[in-house]
Amino acid sequence: MSDPAIWAAFDAAATRDAEARIVNQFASDPDRLARMSVEAAGLYLDLSKQSWTRDGFRICLDLARAAGVERERARLFAGESVNNTECRAVLHPALRAEDGAEFRALGEPVSDEVRSVRQAMADYATAVRSGTETGATGQAFKAIVHIGIGGSDLGPRVVWDALRPLEPAIDLRFVANIDPRDMAEALTGLDPETTLVIVVSKTFTTQETLANAEAARAWLAASLPVAGRDRHFIGVTAAPERAESFGCGRTFAFRDWVGGRYSLWSAVSLSCVIALGPDVFDSLLAGARAMDAHFVTASLERNAPVLLALAQVWNVDGLNRPARTVAPYAHGLRRLPAFLQQLEMESNGKRVHRDGSPVTRPTCPVVFGEPGTNGQHAFFQQIHQGPQVVPAEFVILAETLPDTAGAPLWANALAQGQALMLGKTTGAARAELIAAGASEAEADRLAGHKTFPGNRPSTAIVMDRLGPETLGALLALYEHKTFVEGVIWNINSFDQWGVELGKVLAKAVLRDVGAGEPSADLDPSTSALLTRLLA
Amino acid sequence: MSDPAIWAAFDAAATRDAEARIVNQFASDPDRLARMSVEAAGLYLDLSKQSWTRDGFRICLDLARAAGVERERARLFAGESVNNTECRAVLHPALRAEDGAEFRALGEPVSDEVRSVRQAMADYATAVRSGTETGATGQAFKAIVHIGIGGSDLGPRVVWDALRPLEPAIDLRFVANIDPRDMAEALTGLDPETTLVIVVSKTFTTQETLANAEAARAWLAASLPVAGRDRHFIGVTAAPERAESFGCGRTFAFRDWVGGRYSLWSAVSLSCVIALGPDVFDSLLAGARAMDAHFVTASLERNAPVLLALAQVWNVDGLNRPARTVAPYAHGLRRLPAFLQQLEMESNGKRVHRDGSPVTRPTCPVVFGEPGTNGQHAFFQQIHQGPQVVPAEFVILAETLPDTAGAPLWANALAQGQALMLGKTTGAARAELIAAGASEAEADRLAGHKTFPGNRPSTAIVMDRLGPETLGALLALYEHKTFVEGVIWNINSFDQWGVELGKVLAKAVLRDVGAGEPSADLDPSTSALLTRLLA
Repeated sequence: MSDPAIWAAFDAAATRDAEARIVNQFASDPDRLARMSVEAAGLYLDLSKQSWTRDGFRICLDLARAAGVERERARLFAGESVNNTECRAVLHPALRAEDGAEFRALGEPVSDEVRSVRQAMADYATAVRSGTETGATGQAFKAIVHIGIGGSDLGPRVVWDALRPLEPAIDLRFVANIDPRDMAEALTGLDPETTLVIVVSKTFTTQETLANAEAARAWLAASLPVAGRDRHFIGVTAAPERAESFGCGRTFAFRDWVGGRYSLWSAVSLSCVIALGPDVFDSLLAGARAMDAHFVTASLERNAPVLLALAQVWNVDGLNRPARTVAPYAHGLRRLPAFLQQLEMESNGKRVHRDGSPVTRPTCPVVFGEPGTNGQHAFFQQIHQGPQVVPAEFVILAETLPDTAGAPLWANALAQGQALMLGKTTGAARAELIAAGASEAEADRLAGHKTFPGNRPSTAIVMDRLGPETLGALLALYEHKTFVEGVIWNINSFDQWGVELGKVLAKAVLRDVGAGEPSADLDPSTSALLTRLLA
Repeated sequence: MSDPAIWAAFDAAATRDAEARIVNQFASDPDRLARMSVEAAGLYLDLSKQSWTRDGFRICLDLARAAGVERERARLFAGESVNNTECRAVLHPALRAEDGAEFRALGEPVSDEVRSVRQAMADYATAVRSGTETGATGQAFKAIVHIGIGGSDLGPRVVWDALRPLEPAIDLRFVANIDPRDMAEALTGLDPETTLVIVVSKTFTTQETLANAEAARAWLAASLPVAGRDRHFIGVTAAPERAESFGCGRTFAFRDWVGGRYSLWSAVSLSCVIALGPDVFDSLLAGARAMDAHFVTASLERNAPVLLALAQVWNVDGLNRPARTVAPYAHGLRRLPAFLQQLEMESNGKRVHRDGSPVTRPTCPVVFGEPGTNGQHAFFQQIHQGPQVVPAEFVILAETLPDTAGAPLWANALAQGQALMLGKTTGAARAELIAAGASEAEADRLAGHKTFPGNRPSTAIVMDRLGPETLGALLALYEHKTFVEGVIWNINSFDQWGVELGKVLAKAVLRDVGAGEPSADLDPSTSALLTRLLA
């Protein structure tokens, strides 16, 4: 943890700024917007509607400096053991580096291998797309079933949803859940002869993914000849020997320095490389690379991931706001909130520092959201009028697709940020009621209900367009933001020990299911639940 | 607000219970499970893993009684002006009542009309399903495009996802967002000659829905003859005259005593009635009716919606836990969290009491979630090991579909609840590390990271199966739970004034977009955003 004096100054500033009205800061600080907005890699970030004064903003930057963000950033890109509990480098930037880069993971060169896997993916994708690579019966592939969960699912899914053509030459469907219904829906209407199954698991031991892979393998086997059948069954993993013994006809690998939730830049996105084309994937990498360059070179004051991280730390640690909502005003980004939920909550939902000592301050908030405008007709009521302040983040496209019209999306996104900041006083609400013909009694009765406290923070992120470059930049922005928060909270953002206990206990329950009765050592609640399920 | 003395007792009990270990309560109170679990309408609720002792549980029931839950429940079912700001009855139970029921809204009989609309829906659905009702060119309908947003979208979507056949005779697609990409994806592959468009808007003035309805109307007009074209274009609304003048060939109505987020029992679900069949819809209503009967007749102590509400009030108000996660262990229920997010946060995300005075205690938490098992590989890290306690709710199916195997889903759901409650001490984590061959230094280094604090609350809800009856019961359970919370918080759960300000401001921004430049009175941040978007 960094210097306690910095945190004391931070807390004192937050206490002061909690009383300030955001909207009033623009007049008292004419440079506010310039200071709190930044352009980076085709994105424009506006953090001037956050709940900080000039002084609070400055102290946040002091905190980032004192926490060693610059030092840790250098360690990350140098491939040092940033994931200290697992003694691993964290090198997703190496996956999107330009040709000629020379990244090293714990001293070992990695860039040659990255390039060679990327080339193999591109070659394979080109062969599948052109029909050179065929299925067992000689037919070209028309659909991909992508099997993976968590980090092997959410990243490629966001990329596909955002960039897919309306009528793709090769369709792409995702299966994550161990509920067989997920697989059954994905396979509906597909022909095994023209379907490629891609199984993605870092360890190739993930229970859900292996169960689904078995089901898909059986589905292929039911109608395809043995010869060439394995051309339908591809593995993506950091454990290629397991994928091969599972029966994958071909395997694309990535390394242990790629964390699951940071893996979309690797072979984990093979399905997207095929279905969107290698050029699109290259552009996605280029966009992320541009954000990497910005993150590495920009001063903390003008650094988009750093400023975005500081807004979150300020809200969570300074102002006791334990949840944040993300609303992308684009149908194509509808699963971005779920992606960020994993990226941030799995990375920074931690209760110990890097050295294992318990944290004494809040860490990651709950991250949730739905696309705008849908959310406005659902939970936004609470964001505007609930007693709990929930910071909001709006992602807005400047240039929409040729067949779309952006204006209503712009207007709604901007108006939400305005409404949150400005609010409406009870006096104004009452005056409006009277002006609309209400009686004094009626106005008194309703004015409280029509009052908006306002002074609620939001961030706006404008993307030039929803293309691969800007999407790559956006996702990399959030990755680095998450990393910066981890540095400030002094936690390891790259492990996930919290998923282990449930896995162990699930195995024990599964044994009880097999035995047909709960074991005697179960608590009464779990025992009764199991009895009822087994009935 | 109810008696301050009750709230003082509540707070004192919560302070005491915050120190108790959940798992220890089973031994000290052998009736705990029986007291805190309940069967209702095909559902089994287990609230014994919540953070209350016997004493805390009792005081919660006292609070419910003191808040007048029984009185307000009677007023709801009697059709009194429960939505006091809009002077409306709230009568979604009337929509699912048995034949012969005689509900009244503010004294006016409604049940005859309900029956007649329900019959008209069934007749129309049967005609569409059988091919008697055809499109303009005489072809039977093969697909429905359902256009609606918020309450006109989420309920029918949950019903369809949960109950749809794998290969439906009539496909159903939903369009909500004003982003034209949403509509473009929905229309892909559809033939206007065999497509029915159903436009759902309570007021028939909803900006997003009308924009999408215009797009769909244009799509139909581009290839269908004028004669009979309006048979492709159906309205569902409480303002039928507007739907008719918009060009709807036929209109199904509901009344102002049906709130949008409580409307899936009305003609709002016409799409589902057609695509699933009237019998399935009748079963859905029957399940909800069974939950209504339970809610009305069961004592507070044994009342499922009441107990579920109390667990939330206890967590939010007593224990300062401002978010709750919902994890349905069923792919078919994957959008249930989004449905509940609207139901709860739009209903109870309020900052004033029924009389307009500001609340002095927290109200609705943030509600979010993803299906299990997917969430386990995403944000569950934080639920287990983050410093913030996030109560969890697991929905589990006892009987899965014939083609599915429930055991892994059971095991995972139960294990998550166990892990949250039991945790793992640092000593146990350290001993496991040593047993696995770690050195003392290694065990010291990692034990903190592998520690789980435990004592985290969860609720389990077991559904007998994912069928229409149990789904109806589940959704009605949540509706009544939301109502009970509103009564305890003394807020109006049935208005949504918080959505208004954004709508007004969006119109102003849209004018600026039309004018090509920001108006002078915009704040600098919004002005700069608009300038950039217009560039």
